[in-house]
Amino acid sequence: MDAQTKLKKRLGETNSLLCVGLDSDFEKIPESFTKKSTPQFEFNKYIIELTHEYVLSYKINTAFYEAHGALGMQDLKLTLDYLNENHPDIFTICDAKRADIGNTNKGYVEEVFDWLNFDAVTLHPYLGSEALGPFLSRKDKFSIMLCRTSNPGAGEFQDLESDGWPLWKHVASKVNNNWNEHNNCMLVVGATYPEEMKQIRHVAPDLWFLVPGIGAQGGDLRATLGAGLNEQKEGLLIHSARNIIFASNPKAEAKKLFEKINHLREEID
Amino acid sequence: MDAQTKLKKRLGETNSLLCVGLDSDFEKIPESFTKKSTPQFEFNKYIIELTHEYVLSYKINTAFYEAHGALGMQDLKLTLDYLNENHPDIFTICDAKRADIGNTNKGYVEEVFDWLNFDAVTLHPYLGSEALGPFLSRKDKFSIMLCRTSNPGAGEFQDLESDGWPLWKHVASKVNNNWNEHNNCMLVVGATYPEEMKQIRHVAPDLWFLVPGIGAQGGDLRATLGAGLNEQKEGLLIHSARNIIFASNPKAEAKKLFEKINHLREEID
Repeated sequence: MDAQTKLKKRLGETNSLLCVGLDSDFEKIPESFTKKSTPQFEFNKYIIELTHEYVLSYKINTAFYEAHGALGMQDLKLTLDYLNENHPDIFTICDAKRADIGNTNKGYVEEVFDWLNFDAVTLHPYLGSEALGPFLSRKDKFSIMLCRTSNPGAGEFQDLESDGWPLWKHVASKVNNNWNEHNNCMLVVGATYPEEMKQIRHVAPDLWFLVPGIGAQGGDLRATLGAGLNEQKEGLLIHSARNIIFASNPKAEAKKLFEKINHLREEID
Repeated sequence: MDAQTKLKKRLGETNSLLCVGLDSDFEKIPESFTKKSTPQFEFNKYIIELTHEYVLSYKINTAFYEAHGALGMQDLKLTLDYLNENHPDIFTICDAKRADIGNTNKGYVEEVFDWLNFDAVTLHPYLGSEALGPFLSRKDKFSIMLCRTSNPGAGEFQDLESDGWPLWKHVASKVNNNWNEHNNCMLVVGATYPEEMKQIRHVAPDLWFLVPGIGAQGGDLRATLGAGLNEQKEGLLIHSARNIIFASNPKAEAKKLFEKINHLREEID
């Protein structure tokens, strides 16, 4: 099944916009897991079984696995194999924030899309679409471009204005109008910048946005949904990690956020 | 020894500006190596022993190792351990082109600087210096920012002009004036854009540039040295990979490029 079909199908089945981040930092997972031979994988399995009914997607930030070298990579691979075998209908995002030139990307494409079998990957736009060809030509997988990131200092370069538009708006427009010929692009738009999100939705009315920044980073859920939902009241992958996976009751937290999102979707005009 | 001291010392000992890329793509290394249990590492060891006397630095693009999953990561680790044990004076660059937000970078910092023990890493500037804090605060290691990349489509966003300057010039200026307080920043400037390199040298007179694009990508060595050398006729890490490591005589090719660079350094005024 290609990633577009998978996303649509899962959305239809769950009506969820929730994306849970398996940012399973070895330093932060409970001691009962750190003692196991595959600690990050065992923790992920536990979180997946508690939360899967509420999620549209799982996102995995590879930094937390690479920090553990070969062992971390093994836990990452085990997690993806587990998801693809037991929950093949859940959309998976590799938050690796990559981008190299041309054919060098082939190594990452093979790793992320073929070896790990993710449905999507996050990418830096700085090198342009020509460099990202090996990602963009994969019609069966999504490329998610960093557009307006959620960090406080995001504006240092992203706010530089050219022809009356900040860089992030140029990125949104280029991706929407030129990069998306296979209908396989998304954008990263931080929940911490709802005003920018509104403008990006205007420039890219149909693209899906991956939205970090709710919760620990302070993004407001109502403002985010108001600014970013598309005409069908979809089009957002609302990401939450720490507040769910490190909660004393991860299932309750996932359910709460899932319900809060859907309550607001109904409320917002 | 911190990375600044190491670079200076190695430069003094070799007078070399050559940076050999261990882009040891499993698909391209000779069959005599692919049969071994640690193929990419064995190939690297062979190349290192043939070329080390001519190099200032080795650069490793992690994409070629990640494409091989856990096995590739093992070969990457073995290569770094080998270099640090047998050639501890050679400057090492992790060409990983990373950048995440804030603390998430800590995973990469630990992987690249502590676990693998590289001297430097390449980074995307898009998220700004606030996000890159965990890298920039490592006074003992270099952060190398993508500024003007060597690919044909580099200009798609990098050429967008703001206040009369293209984005790459803003990046060069910010890195030089604001990011470099620990004297641990460098820039990536492609050999395929000598005119831009000249302007970047003007904005950042003392920063070192990592220069890909000579050889297979068509960058001209004389134009590059003319545009990029600093006042001391140093400040460039001239990168070459395929033309050396996949040559029938890697040692002869490394020696030839080393001599050609130094001949031109003397010639250029």
